[in-house]
Amino acid sequence: MRKVLGNLTYGLYALGVEAGGRKNMCIVNTAIQVSSEPAKITVALSKNNFSHDLVKEAKKFSISILDQETDREIFGRMGFSSGKDKDKFEDFPYGEDELKNPYLNQALGVLSAKVTDMVDVGSHTLFVGEVVQAIALKEGTPLTYTYYKQVKKGTVPKNAPTYAAATEEPKKQESATKRYRCAVCGYIYQENLPFEQLAEDYKCPVCNASKAAFKTVE
Amino acid sequence: MRKVLGNLTYGLYALGVEAGGRKNMCIVNTAIQVSSEPAKITVALSKNNFSHDLVKEAKKFSISILDQETDREIFGRMGFSSGKDKDKFEDFPYGEDELKNPYLNQALGVLSAKVTDMVDVGSHTLFVGEVVQAIALKEGTPLTYTYYKQVKKGTVPKNAPTYAAATEEPKKQESATKRYRCAVCGYIYQENLPFEQLAEDYKCPVCNASKAAFKTVE
Repeated sequence: MRKVLGNLTYGLYALGVEAGGRKNMCIVNTAIQVSSEPAKITVALSKNNFSHDLVKEAKKFSISILDQETDREIFGRMGFSSGKDKDKFEDFPYGEDELKNPYLNQALGVLSAKVTDMVDVGSHTLFVGEVVQAIALKEGTPLTYTYYKQVKKGTVPKNAPTYAAATEEPKKQESATKRYRCAVCGYIYQENLPFEQLAEDYKCPVCNASKAAFKTVE
Repeated sequence: MRKVLGNLTYGLYALGVEAGGRKNMCIVNTAIQVSSEPAKITVALSKNNFSHDLVKEAKKFSISILDQETDREIFGRMGFSSGKDKDKFEDFPYGEDELKNPYLNQALGVLSAKVTDMVDVGSHTLFVGEVVQAIALKEGTPLTYTYYKQVKKGTVPKNAPTYAAATEEPKKQESATKRYRCAVCGYIYQENLPFEQLAEDYKCPVCNASKAAFKTVE
């Protein structure tokens, strides 16, 4: 089943939400338009996700549409850490829509929605929202989930509905070189140059974490 | 708003459904996975769509995942005519899943789902379904809606949530050549060779309709 589900196509977005003065952002791949009159979009969020609780409370969210030029730092900052533990917006410039949700200034555009329906679908809640504001920011090529995985070598946060544990376990290398995994995002370093020989200012190519964040893979 | 919504990413699928002995298939771009445990998918269907009524009645559907090699004929047969008026499966080989829904033999794979929730979202109904069967058929590259529009020069059926009337009205050519529109799928012929000079066995590049199906655009 996992193999067939893996052929479904997704874009990649940053969901922003503000509830009672608290704001958060996370990376999602499940935003689509589901109705034309009125224009409605849906997004599925894991119940383990801090943004899930904020959207449920505030009944609104923004969707920032990422493009292929999106800074890697965004995935580390917004996608692989929880807003429960830290303020994702510290020293980070962002915009605010008319519903007070944060959005990414560097996105192609932003859709802001008021939640009209919530459906409990198991591990996730499906939020349906009517689009009340659309902001066009720049021209560019939308980032797809496939491009993120294949070209940007991105990995999948555990709370994505499409998460498969197997994606974190690439084939073992034939050489005896030790492999290192980024503890922040799960990216596995497996280039020919041994990890130990990388410069000290090496950063994770997915989430921009420092070299010190890498641990040996058993 | 239309411009920003246009940056959302979609795949392209054939939805199959059987209800009380009647079966139908249509082309959709709104299938995504929304939960991992249990695995659930959603699809949005226009209330004007014959398949909509069948899915509502039978509470089940199949999603055949199209790939870039998909025969053009599929879009004409399944996407631009209604199953109310004709049997889309006449002289057409197809598979049947364990829920008796038809599926495309030439797809990458098939997901079959039992409907667990239905949400009225305006012009469309959002169907949530638990995946009960997955059939892997072949390897290939999933067809995206963008690829379909840009490379296959496909047009959008009026019942798609992402339908925008403007997509059917390309810029007028500078030359005085008359333009012809395919009455089946809406494709507009605007190559340099005048339409009248095309061979009599010319077929619409989108839906495979005959030359006779083209009408002059005013």
